[in-house]
Formats: sequence, C-alpha cells, structure tokens
Amino acid sequence: MNPKLRPIGYVITRASHEELRHGTAISQIVIDKRFARGLEGLEKFSHAYVLFWLHEIPKRSTKLKVHPQGRVDLRKVGVFATRSPHRPNPLGLTLVRLLSKRGRTLTVKGLDAYDDTPVLDLKPYDKRDSASRARVPDWWKKLEREHRCARQNPNR
Amino acid sequence: MNPKLRPIGYVITRASHEELRHGTAISQIVIDKRFARGLEGLEKFSHAYVLFWLHEIPKRSTKLKVHPQGRVDLRKVGVFATRSPHRPNPLGLTLVRLLSKRGRTLTVKGLDAYDDTPVLDLKPYDKRDSASRARVPDWWKKLEREHRCARQNPNR
Repeated sequence: MNPKLRPIGYVITRASHEELRHGTAISQIVIDKRFARGLEGLEKFSHAYVLFWLHEIPKRSTKLKVHPQGRVDLRKVGVFATRSPHRPNPLGLTLVRLLSKRGRTLTVKGLDAYDDTPVLDLKPYDKRDSASRARVPDWWKKLEREHRCARQNPNR
Repeated sequence: MNPKLRPIGYVITRASHEELRHGTAISQIVIDKRFARGLEGLEKFSHAYVLFWLHEIPKRSTKLKVHPQGRVDLRKVGVFATRSPHRPNPLGLTLVRLLSKRGRTLTVKGLDAYDDTPVLDLKPYDKRDSASRARVPDWWKKLEREHRCARQNPNR
C-alpha cells in the first residue's frame, strides 16, 4: 500500500459553524490546475460525494470510543459508529448538492468542511448510493431530532 | 497536511468479479486488533460506508479523462464524473449492508472491493446521506439499464 495522498483542491467558505453543521453552507471547491480536466462532465450530476482531509484534527488525537458529537450525556460508542473526526484516518465524507461549475471552481451546498480544507476526491452520486430502509440506533435518532429543531429555530 | 494513512483492516472475499460488480457480493472485513474497540455500536446500523484503498491500481495510472467503465463506445469524461479507480487518490467508497458483527469481523453485502483490500474507514449511514431527486447524465442511465439487465439475466 502506497499511502501517499495529494490534495486535488481546496475548500473556500465563509459559512458559519452553524451553517456547516446544519447542511446549509454554500462553499466553493477550487480544483488544482493539474486536475481540472478531471471535472469534465461532473456538472451533469446534481449531487456528489466530497472526500476531504480533516486537516484541523491534531495528529495522534485518534479516539476509539467517543461520546456522540461530544455529548457527555450520551454513552460512548466506537468511533466507527459515529462521524467523529477523531478517526484513525482523518478522512471526511459528505454528500453535497452541485450548484454550479465555472472553470475549475465548483459551488456546492451542504459541505461541512472548514475553509482551506484539502479535498482528496469527488465522486458522482447516484441512487444506488442510497438505502431505502436504513436502521440507525436510538441515540442517533435523538440527535437528529435535536438538529432538526435547531435548524427550524436557529435563533432559539 | 499529513497524508499518512494506515489500514484499519482488510477485506476477505471469495466473490466473483460479477458479484462484486452487481452489488451481490458477501464479504468479510476483519478489523485490526488495535482498532477493534472502534467497532462498538456499529451493529445498530443497517448500512455503512466503507472507504478503502484501491490497492490493485498501479501507481502513476491516474487518468484525468476516461471512457465510463472502459466502454470505448461512450465518450470520455472527467475522472471525477465517474467511479473509475484510476483517480489521483485511489480511494474507494461503497455503501454496504451490515449483515453481522462477530468480534472484529464484519460480514457485509455489496462491497465491490477485491480480496485483501486495505480498509481505511467505516462510517455509519443515515438517510441524510441520500438525495431524493438525484440527476445523472444519459450515459450513466444507459449503463445502469445494462447492469440491471445483466443482474436479472446473469447467464445470458
């Protein structure tokens, strides 16, 4: 295994922490000139996965058990049962809506990556990438309900 | 950016090339002892993403424009508009169904990774990871129709 990764581009965003969390952030992904030809045709898709490097996570901060979203009122679970950034390999994955492509700049909605995040890959999304009856644990549903309330009542 | 990745485990499968392609393969993922605690609670999810290293792709085989699925009858498109393995960063991503977890061995359905593939990450799947009205290009629909026929008529 040759583990060498290279950024294909970077994220530019002014979105707030709340917008990033709630999936409402609008961001740009600027692809490196060397890789720009690889974008051709991506504009025909409405959605894509963005794989990125969680560059703000300090080295050696891997945790194998975490409180979901740092919530100490919830029992710790294995890191692979969460989306915590403190993973053995700090790889981020988010499904985004592709709003536009101009040259080598993509404008996307829903990316939860901070400004200047290195992007590693883009993959087109298709309905085969979804599961119709996905089961999740109770703690996940509880957090989902709370997020939904927070999105609907942002100033509460 | 510290680009060092480390496998968290490996794929074991005897599935045929056709089964891998058609999403019907049953595979095991054996997680390294060091990371086994990170699996706790994953069994409460029905589906998860598997991120893996496309270890069979030779170095320097990156292509920026590819014929979709190697089909020379289809026009070349940018590699980021396809799921081709010849990517700048050879990262694979597949949504799988979690069938069972015994100790540090997961049995999964639908993983299109070959035997001995290094696994980099597991992430639980939730309906927020799906898009209800995803648009894809015509060439993608054509390939999907052909795959569906092949799955329904495997001996044709």
